[in-house]
This record gives sequence, C-alpha cells and structure tokens, in this order.
Amino acid sequence: MNVVEACRTLAREGLVKGSQGNASERIGAVMLIKPSGASCAQTKFACSVLLQDGDVREKCTPSTDAPAHRALYNAIPEIKGVVHTHSPYATAWASAGWAIPCVTTGQSDAFGGDIPISGFCEIGGEEIGREIVRMWEHDQRRTAFLIRGHGVFTIGRTLDAAVKSAVMVEHCAHVTWLAQQMRGLYRLAQVEIDANYKRYHENYGQHGTSE
Amino acid sequence: MNVVEACRTLAREGLVKGSQGNASERIGAVMLIKPSGASCAQTKFACSVLLQDGDVREKCTPSTDAPAHRALYNAIPEIKGVVHTHSPYATAWASAGWAIPCVTTGQSDAFGGDIPISGFCEIGGEEIGREIVRMWEHDQRRTAFLIRGHGVFTIGRTLDAAVKSAVMVEHCAHVTWLAQQMRGLYRLAQVEIDANYKRYHENYGQHGTSE
Amino acid sequence: MNVVEACRTLAREGLVKGSQGNASERIGAVMLIKPSGASCAQTKFACSVLLQDGDVREKCTPSTDAPAHRALYNAIPEIKGVVHTHSPYATAWASAGWAIPCVTTGQSDAFGGDIPISGFCEIGGEEIGREIVRMWEHDQRRTAFLIRGHGVFTIGRTLDAAVKSAVMVEHCAHVTWLAQQMRGLYRLAQVEIDANYKRYHENYGQHGTSE
Amino acid sequence: MNVVEACRTLAREGLVKGSQGNASERIGAVMLIKPSGASCAQTKFACSVLLQDGDVREKCTPSTDAPAHRALYNAIPEIKGVVHTHSPYATAWASAGWAIPCVTTGQSDAFGGDIPISGFCEIGGEEIGREIVRMWEHDQRRTAFLIRGHGVFTIGRTLDAAVKSAVMVEHCAHVTWLAQQMRGLYRLAQVEIDANYKRYHENYGQHGTSE
Repeated sequence: MNVVEACRTLAREGLVKGSQGNASERIGAVMLIKPSGASCAQTKFACSVLLQDGDVREKCTPSTDAPAHRALYNAIPEIKGVVHTHSPYATAWASAGWAIPCVTTGQSDAFGGDIPISGFCEIGGEEIGREIVRMWEHDQRRTAFLIRGHGVFTIGRTLDAAVKSAVMVEHCAHVTWLAQQMRGLYRLAQVEIDANYKRYHENYGQHGTSE
Repeated sequence: MNVVEACRTLAREGLVKGSQGNASERIGAVMLIKPSGASCAQTKFACSVLLQDGDVREKCTPSTDAPAHRALYNAIPEIKGVVHTHSPYATAWASAGWAIPCVTTGQSDAFGGDIPISGFCEIGGEEIGREIVRMWEHDQRRTAFLIRGHGVFTIGRTLDAAVKSAVMVEHCAHVTWLAQQMRGLYRLAQVEIDANYKRYHENYGQHGTSE
Repeated sequence: MNVVEACRTLAREGLVKGSQGNASERIGAVMLIKPSGASCAQTKFACSVLLQDGDVREKCTPSTDAPAHRALYNAIPEIKGVVHTHSPYATAWASAGWAIPCVTTGQSDAFGGDIPISGFCEIGGEEIGREIVRMWEHDQRRTAFLIRGHGVFTIGRTLDAAVKSAVMVEHCAHVTWLAQQMRGLYRLAQVEIDANYKRYHENYGQHGTSE
Repeated sequence: MNVVEACRTLAREGLVKGSQGNASERIGAVMLIKPSGASCAQTKFACSVLLQDGDVREKCTPSTDAPAHRALYNAIPEIKGVVHTHSPYATAWASAGWAIPCVTTGQSDAFGGDIPISGFCEIGGEEIGREIVRMWEHDQRRTAFLIRGHGVFTIGRTLDAAVKSAVMVEHCAHVTWLAQQMRGLYRLAQVEIDANYKRYHENYGQHGTSE
C-alpha cells in the first residue's frame, strides 16, 4: 500500500481520529509523508521530502512529525515505512508511563518482547526520532515504540509491515490493559517469547516470512 | 458541513444514541438547529431561530437546548457552530464530576489544557449557556465543556470545528479514562501544553491553521 | 418497524449475538415474535401466537421467551412491543446484581429513574413476565428491566419505542459502568429526575411526544 | 460456511487482527485449514492436510496450528470444525490465568458451565490439541477452551457451530470481565446451568437444535 492507503487504513482501523497520526514511505532518497493537518481518513496525496536535508520537493507542508520520520530513515537503513498513531489503549499505556509487558504469545510473535516507552519528547523536531533509535538499538527486533504522554510509532521493512505493527500494538495494548485491570499481568518467560518470535519470523507464511 | 450533515456525523461517530444530541450553525442573525425529538442519524432538516429574541421562523419545534445555543452565540461573537453530545466516556467524566485532566500531547494540541466541568444545570433554559460562557471566559482557548451529570458541549469558529472538537473530546476522555484506571494520571506541565497548543494552532496544516 | 426489522436493528446496534435476544409486537389478539433459534441478524419471518391461550397459528416454533412476552401483553394493556437483549453492559449490571442508578439527565429523560433488577428467573415460562409486571407496577413509567444473571427486557407503547429503550438502556449501562469504575456514582436528586422525565415526555419532539 | 468464509467471519466480528487466528473443517480423511501467514480477512483458499499422517495434499503451507487441529479431529470423532482466535476479552482471561466463570444464563445456554483454561502450551506441535482433549474429556459438553497466555480454541459438530462458539465465548468473556470489574462475579448454581443447557440443546430452534 502507498501512504494515502496507509493513512486511510489507520482511520478505518480506529487508530487515529481527526487529523491525528501519519504515515510515510521511503522511496530512494525521498520520503513521502502525510501533509500537515490532513485527516488520515480523507488524505488525498502525500508530500515529498528529501531525506538528506529535509527539503520539500513541491508546494506542500509535510506532517509536523516529518523530522522524526526523517531521523528514523537516516539512522535505520533497512526500514521503508514509518507510522504514527494515538490509538487509545497504546496511548493510555504511554500516558500512564508504562512499557507494555509481553503477556501473550501474540505479542511474542509480533514484537519479541515488551513494547518500550521513551521519555517525554518535544514535538516537531528530531527528538522523537532519536529516542526511538535509542530504543531500537537496545533490541533491533523492536518495531513499535510508545512515546511518553503522546502515542505510538511503528517502523517496518515495508510500509505494510509498519501499518500491521500499528494494528498489532493496539491489539496487544488492549488485551494487556484488560489483564492488568484483573490484576493478572504475568510476563511470559523470555525463552518462550524468543521461541515464538523465531517461529513467527522464520517458519511462517507461504514464503517463510510473516510479512 | 451543514447542521443535518453535522448531526449525521455525530451519530456515525458513535457520539449520540436515539434522539440525544444536537448541532447548530449561526448564519447572520439566525441559527439553524436540529428539531426537537429528531434522531441525529435521521434528521432531514433544521429549524431556523432568530438569535435576538428566539423567535422561530417557520413551523418547527427546535431542540430543547436551543436557548443554551442562543446564549452562546449571543455571548461569543466569533463562534459559528455549537454541538452537544452524550458521548459515553465524556459523559462518564461529567457524571463522576471530574474535569478531564490534560495528560497527552493530543489533548494539549486540541484543547490547550483540561476539559472543564460545570455545576449541575437545569435543561431547557439558558443556564447551560451561561455556565459555558463562564468557563470560556476563564480561558478563551477552550472549545469543549462538560456539563455535570449530563454530557458535553463544544463550540467552534465553524460548525466543522465544533464537530471535530466533539470527536476529539471523546477520544481524550477515552484515553484518559483508561490511564485513570491504571492509576496513571500524570498531567503534562503547563509549559509543554502551551507549546503544543501554540504549534498546533499556529504552525500546522496547509495554511497555518488546524481547521 | 415490524418484528423482523426490530430483530435486525438489535443485531446492527450490537445488542445481541448469535441467536440471543428477541422482539415481539402485539397486533389485535395475536403477538408476532421471533422464531426460536433464529439469529436476530438473519431472521426472515415471525411466528404468530394467540395472546389468550398461547396457541401457535402456523407451523412455527416461537422464541423460548414467548410465555414471558405473552404475560406482559396480557398484564399491561397499553404496550404493543417487547424486546429482549443480552447487551453487554446491561447484562454485566444484571450479573453483578445491581440496579442501574440514575446518574445522568439522559437516563432521567428516557427512564425517569433507576433501571430496576429482578430476582433470578427460570427461563421458558411466565416467571420473567411476572417479575417484570411486579417491577412495572411499582412505577408505571418504567420501560426497561434487568433480569438477574440474564439480560434486559424493554416494553413500549410501540415496537419502535421498545427498540429505542433497548438502545438507551445499554447506553445508560455503559456510561454508568464507566462512572462506577471511577468511584463516581452520584444519583441525581429525584426532583431533578422527575423534572427531566416530565419535560422529555410532555414537551419534546414535533408533536409533544418523545416517540 | 466453508473455511474461507469462516476466516472472514472471524475478522468481521473483530475476533482476529492481522494474520492471527485460523479455522479448519474436516471433510472425510482430510482437513481444510487456513494457510500459514494469511490474514483471516483476506484468505482466498484453504490448505488440504491428511488427518492420518499430516501430509499436505498440494503446494500450500498450512497454519502453524495445523498439528493442534489434527490432534483434535483424531481424538474427537464427532467434531467437524475447529476455530482459533485471539479475541481480546477471552485472551485477557487466558493471560490472567483465569477460567471464565459461568455467571449468566447466556453462558449456561451456550457452554453449560465455566470456560476452562489450559496450562501454557508450546505452539506448532500437538500440545495445544492434547490439552484441549484433556479438558474436553473432563466434560464433553465443552466446546470452548482458553489456552493460557495465548487465546481461544473452539470445536463444533459443524464449522458453523465452532464459529458461533468463538463469537459467544468472546461475548461471555466481555460481560464477565465487566462484572468482575464491579466485584460482582456470582457463579450460577450448577442445577440452573444444567437446566438452561438442556433446554437450549434439546428444546430450542425450529428442529429442536440450537445449531
């Protein structure tokens, strides 16, 4: 899917409201990203931004989060897609200041462990990007990140993968919130988490890939 | 959008049930408002009411809340739209008697602080309108207001903006309720809230406006 | 709307799952009611049952709850519609054994007070009907009733009104559950509840009626 | 319905996200099952697997859970359909490590008692199947089973019945979670549960069957 389709998927899945959220895709030396202020549900085009210097290629104001997206593409060569949402359950964990502990085989499969949380970041610059890179360097299997008091970013080897991670992190945030309310948070053993992650990423799908 | 489209949007977004809720638009010396008893999802026309004296322009019984809407238009010259819902999370905060604290950058962007709550108001007269004006005078950035034991009113420079605020206040009420249940309500620093509000209202969108 | 349309509305509004729930309408000496085992979402016809002796008018097995519906029509001459759902929030109150306290003006408008709860009833006979009649006799404004450990019944002067009550009782159950979780249940004063109920039922809508 | 229709129903009902979940159907000596990695919402075909030795009949990688499904068909001759989901409420109970207690007549009707929970199982082999058989042998009315820290499996005499159980177990998990949050879990008396189950499975529907 392209950036416009990704934005509309985020809206249809209930992960963004109003003009919240955005998606971008790296194509060569450029990233395409949602225009600033556009509603994800009604976006009609994407802005083109040079990754090297952040110059905009045409008359189009890119998302406020463009510097954060750009920092991610420049720091992590293998990613092609970045997604940002304020999906309710994940944003609640981010507001309460908790990482989402890995209590299900589903989260093990998709994320290989807890969903980490950053410190509070200023919006509009590269700080969000730098915080995500720091969390990613700690464990390079990570593709979803909570931003404290703000929301979620996901990254992917494709834009489809980043969108799928945005859907899955909200699902995990939902189930884990429900279990937390029951006073029933039991983190799976890391050895079980790792076995599930490995199975899901190496022996899954029609071509040995989960994407 | 016009009043009929606004009402249908409120129903489609799950912010009203049955004949709950209403929307109005100021056009010159008149306001158009949902008829009394009409279901938002099925409204077909709007009633026309003179702002000066409240006279109805045609054979049509306007919403019970018409005096409250009229009081708002008469007290706050810059608004063109008013929306009222009983959206579930916001109404729960209103019933429990709490303002919604500002714990996310999203609420900072949209509302610039807490969502305030009124005292209990009689329905059908101007009391709701007067209470909202009192809360708005305290901080004129405010566009969403809880009415204790009742629901939500939003105001906007356009009807579209008032509808957007009604969507966003329910989103904020949802996320903040979830965080409150985790015993994790951390109000953002006012300096951060103000910086986000300023960025969102001055440097956002394709024409420097979030609306 | 007729019985088939009512059943489909219940499914579309998320008030019933699978073959749960049913609706009936009194037409003269007969009631039409959902067939036993039919999914509300896919019901295609209604069974015809004589109110006097419960005889079925054609080859059709009526809903297990037919004796309860019949008992209601025979005891309360002014009702024309009865609806039964297992909507999640109302059923949670019914399972926990609580009446739903009236904490909002919305519940005041629609129901004029708390939503009462019965004792545990055997299914398939008239016991559910008798319990509802007992609760209704206590306050004849009541149109929605929790059945302990089971679900909800609503009654109406029309089938449309009974369906609307089924939608509204779930809305009230939802908002009130959210407020209860915040330790914020404040029952409105009965004088306020009565004023709202009176306004809603006497001075509302295009013809002075809320239905 | 066939396997493809079953998978799409699970997605439409909100019981699975992304490539989670699967469904299978026994047809003679073969089972048809969702391909590995396929999204339930977009599955287009099913893989064919021999029940006797697990050989795949064509170029198609079956779901990782195929050995668990196969173990169920081989141990329980009367079942024709198996469904697996990660539906949020049921998965929360499974993560918290609780069986779902039977607190409603609806759960009595559909399941005849509590929804049992297994120990933690390795994914990809027969362990999940063996655990379910063990729970089923304890009470052969059981058609839904929580897998600890993982999700839900349901079985049915038809694939339609297994899909219906997957819908109903999430409904029961939802209502019971809500009641648990109110500190209001009251298990029904087993004699009431048994009476409801018997009525629902022997005297219900147009042909004396609930399916």
